Amino acid sequence: MPQPARPRTHRISPPSAAWVSLVGAGPGDPGLMTLKGAERLGAADVVLYDRLVHPEVLELTAPEAALIHVGKAAGRPSPAQEAVNERLIALARPGRLVVRLKGGDPFLFGRGGEEAAALARAGVPFEVVPGVTSAVAAPAYAGIPVTDRRVTSSVTFVSGHLPPGHPDSQVDWSAMAAIEGTLVILMGVRNAGSIAAALLTGGRAATTPAAIVESGTYDHQRTSVSTLGDLASVAAAGRVSSPAVIVVGEVVDLRASLAWFDAPQHTGSSAEVMRVS
Amino acid sequence: MPQPARPRTHRISPPSAAWVSLVGAGPGDPGLMTLKGAERLGAADVVLYDRLVHPEVLELTAPEAALIHVGKAAGRPSPAQEAVNERLIALARPGRLVVRLKGGDPFLFGRGGEEAAALARAGVPFEVVPGVTSAVAAPAYAGIPVTDRRVTSSVTFVSGHLPPGHPDSQVDWSAMAAIEGTLVILMGVRNAGSIAAALLTGGRAATTPAAIVESGTYDHQRTSVSTLGDLASVAAAGRVSSPAVIVVGEVVDLRASLAWFDAPQHTGSSAEVMRVS
Repeated sequence: MPQPARPRTHRISPPSAAWVSLVGAGPGDPGLMTLKGAERLGAADVVLYDRLVHPEVLELTAPEAALIHVGKAAGRPSPAQEAVNERLIALARPGRLVVRLKGGDPFLFGRGGEEAAALARAGVPFEVVPGVTSAVAAPAYAGIPVTDRRVTSSVTFVSGHLPPGHPDSQVDWSAMAAIEGTLVILMGVRNAGSIAAALLTGGRAATTPAAIVESGTYDHQRTSVSTLGDLASVAAAGRVSSPAVIVVGEVVDLRASLAWFDAPQHTGSSAEVMRVS
Repeated sequence: MPQPARPRTHRISPPSAAWVSLVGAGPGDPGLMTLKGAERLGAADVVLYDRLVHPEVLELTAPEAALIHVGKAAGRPSPAQEAVNERLIALARPGRLVVRLKGGDPFLFGRGGEEAAALARAGVPFEVVPGVTSAVAAPAYAGIPVTDRRVTSSVTFVSGHLPPGHPDSQVDWSAMAAIEGTLVILMGVRNAGSIAAALLTGGRAATTPAAIVESGTYDHQRTSVSTLGDLASVAAAGRVSSPAVIVVGEVVDLRASLAWFDAPQHTGSSAEVMRVS
């Protein structure tokens, strides 16, 4: 494996003392890892990684590095965040460079803030290496710009992991419905029906274009285009699997001409692209 | 200059015919360029780049590549988007690999959608290489996670380049005020006063924490923390320069413990960090 490029940037070399780098692995396509993240992986003594990290990204590590999977395993609950925090601290303290490798970006639905706060409390120095987020990249690979000045000047990323009305939900879905911009809903496939219903109740038109992008930026990415009114039935009928992002807004219509990743020279997988309307 | 890493991903080699790669250069720190973007730059015959691209990123190109600046020059208007579109097409047509290098991400306030649409109409194949967006990375370098499940489950990115009430504005600022999540306002420093006023009129509390992050991810990044009520006077008093992002929301408070980039081992530039409240 070749070593990653090392641009002549000032801050790329980590100190040799205990240190944690919270690195975004990007959305899936291993080419979307950053140069700085790749450098950090190459220098790491230990890497703690999540389920949604592409295996090829782990090949950027040194042969002697310890790789520890701390993501959710099939059929088992996620390790408690507190346990991951403590493990990071315990691994770094003896003077190791620990990379915490997280899918997408560490500070956008990544719980990186909680890990950073625990490190700060423990006095362990850390940095953040932002990553390409699937909230932008999965739509982009589907030919959907999340903003386009011809259509909208805002985009909202919102977690759909709790259904509308759930007592722990922090999301005001009627406020979400009132934004005329693009909505990108992450972790929302399971709740697609109730989320669509809440957006319709909030006043967003049933004819608003909507898309579900599964396995964004992976070779097997699959995009299902429909409308907000039909979103629930598409999600139910299509046996949609995680990870997937849901895009709601007029920008979805741009996919009709911009679907570059589905073009024959790229995947030839147009049979996998459903058009439901 | 070492060649960038080439992970064993399937789709990284471009075809040799006419082809345009819309590449996100990231927010400033050249280490935040992606491996795939670096590879494309190394292979490009021609690179059309914007003002906000870090000079070190351009060093990833081959010595024989033509580098063409198409951004706004000091004191002059930006080239018309239509002219950039036509130039991309004309340069690619004879069989060149053209990289269109854009600050941040091409499809998030990047006009990449318009360029992609022009290429599609002209029959020139293209791809999108997403980049790390300053909307996430600038706050991250300032120690502000744009989401944190302890605080909020949504973040909205909105363009502030037009003041509220402008006839061409597509943004409903009262809807923006009604979202309880994080707001990240891009290109909004010039209009910070009227935007803050619109958010206050819309009902967002004057005590809501707010931050202005200038030159995000650059060594000279500067962060000014205040509140929504004081944002206008901070923006006016601080001689804030572009590029800058404005963050509004409770997540700004997390910076108090997470400001890693301003820590002595990173820049020693804490004198540049103002606390206004």
